[in-house]
Amino acid sequence: MQRIVVLSGGIGGARFLRGLRRAAPDAGITVIGNTGDDIHLFGLKVCPDLDTVMYTLGGGIHDGQGWGRADETFTVKEELAAYGVGPEWFGLGDRDFATHIVRTQMLGAGYPLSAVTEALCRRWEPGVTLLPMTDDRVETHVVVDDGEGGRKAVHFQEYWVRLRAAVPAHAVLPVGADQAAPAPGVLDALATADVIVFPPSNPVVSIGTILAVPGLREGIADAGVPVVGLSPIIGDAPVRGMADKVLAAVGVPSTAAAVAQHYGSGLLDGWLVDTADADAVGAVEADGIRCRAVPLLMTDIDATAAMAREALSLAEEVKAA
Amino acid sequence: MQRIVVLSGGIGGARFLRGLRRAAPDAGITVIGNTGDDIHLFGLKVCPDLDTVMYTLGGGIHDGQGWGRADETFTVKEELAAYGVGPEWFGLGDRDFATHIVRTQMLGAGYPLSAVTEALCRRWEPGVTLLPMTDDRVETHVVVDDGEGGRKAVHFQEYWVRLRAAVPAHAVLPVGADQAAPAPGVLDALATADVIVFPPSNPVVSIGTILAVPGLREGIADAGVPVVGLSPIIGDAPVRGMADKVLAAVGVPSTAAAVAQHYGSGLLDGWLVDTADADAVGAVEADGIRCRAVPLLMTDIDATAAMAREALSLAEEVKAA
Repeated sequence: MQRIVVLSGGIGGARFLRGLRRAAPDAGITVIGNTGDDIHLFGLKVCPDLDTVMYTLGGGIHDGQGWGRADETFTVKEELAAYGVGPEWFGLGDRDFATHIVRTQMLGAGYPLSAVTEALCRRWEPGVTLLPMTDDRVETHVVVDDGEGGRKAVHFQEYWVRLRAAVPAHAVLPVGADQAAPAPGVLDALATADVIVFPPSNPVVSIGTILAVPGLREGIADAGVPVVGLSPIIGDAPVRGMADKVLAAVGVPSTAAAVAQHYGSGLLDGWLVDTADADAVGAVEADGIRCRAVPLLMTDIDATAAMAREALSLAEEVKAA
Repeated sequence: MQRIVVLSGGIGGARFLRGLRRAAPDAGITVIGNTGDDIHLFGLKVCPDLDTVMYTLGGGIHDGQGWGRADETFTVKEELAAYGVGPEWFGLGDRDFATHIVRTQMLGAGYPLSAVTEALCRRWEPGVTLLPMTDDRVETHVVVDDGEGGRKAVHFQEYWVRLRAAVPAHAVLPVGADQAAPAPGVLDALATADVIVFPPSNPVVSIGTILAVPGLREGIADAGVPVVGLSPIIGDAPVRGMADKVLAAVGVPSTAAAVAQHYGSGLLDGWLVDTADADAVGAVEADGIRCRAVPLLMTDIDATAAMAREALSLAEEVKAA
């Protein structure tokens, strides 16, 4: 059985995984999920990226918006607002609330997030092994202007959901990452992987945060297997989300080639860019990263499965080289 | 301004209070609510009696069933069940969940239950000052057969909601009551009261639990004002609930006269029985408790207001005597 490890953020990673599962139905897929986006709301622990992967692969996702549950209602949130309790800008639905209630209750009972995630996945049967990157608390903060000539750090969700990434991001800080340990199973999955994939997730706040957990970069390098990625940037703009904004914060241009160079040939062996960025192939390969231009729009599951096949095929090519 | 203090359980007390508010619109009413029914569910603190009073007086109650919210939905509960997380026998609706989330979050932030209750009431404007009997944890347990020849103690909600009070109750234990202190405001309210009322709430698990908090009985006796009650028993049966079952557990017959005698003339000055129990008046008065027979069915708010007027009138009579 082929063992594939994927480092994933939310929507982009989750949709890619749906295609990968289709492309490699017999593979054992382990997902190392970003938890830097996690947030405590209403006294509950919310893990947006883990849940997006779980709901997407488990058939519970709101397909149109890419996050949250299908057929969702917002009664609890409306009632909380009637008590004057917010934030009102974070869209927690009633179905979604149940997930956070179960998670918070289990965490309160002493289970680590990895065990909680496993328990939640028993319902959703995502067809992959979903691991949080760490059981420790890591919180991605974004440094923005404070409106009074200074700067302040806000939670990533506040930057992204409340401020809609419409203000300049000066820095991205994975607070607590330097003290975090990989969750149980993470290093083992890397050590026994046949291929490691970076899906078209955000290179800074999703995959970058995962890579900020001590031991993760080394685990990937030491695995000695092909590491291939798919560009989340097409034609100098992110397909979705705010990758351009947070790339700027870390001084990386918003291009497919620059993202590959940001990961670097020490980490990345292969890189897929969209056909629109075919002229970037030369620059990436000049940096020692094998590169191909293929269609990278996840318009439907067939197109996504084709992308996954291209990634696995590129990994084979790397291995054979 | 007349100051009325009412010791209240859930449905019966809440409905009586609606009538009392109508009967004495200019009075300052303080409600000392039972918290022995409180239960932790899904990691959340649920206070059924306080909420029933708050929702009933605040216009949010499900009128037909007497507890829970009007126009309620049960999405969160269904989702919790899909995770295999129960108990399924306790009916927490989505609107109701919001109350418990706010409460739990405030308790977690360090506020005592009395402050939390005050905050929740700012939304509901119940027209009374609602105080929990204590900020400390008290949990009413009921001793039942364990099905293996022995006995066990179960939470009151399990006895009442899950077992539907269909098994014999051997004892009622207000666990923690002996270590509890009256909540801020409780003793002050008693000390400055003009009249103290026991509504037709359960004499054992509602009013009995409140009276089990050290200092409450003394506070009532020391107030030196009329203490009048309304019988929850009509024609040897409780109007609603399981008062007969828990009265049996404490060795008290299920009659209007026996409940008055259970409270005793040391505590109670006046007692209203239903016209169906007019023949009990003599026995109650023989015990030194002034007694009248009046209609005691809370069929609508007018009938309930009339009951409240009778109680206040009886208090005047006690005072004049």
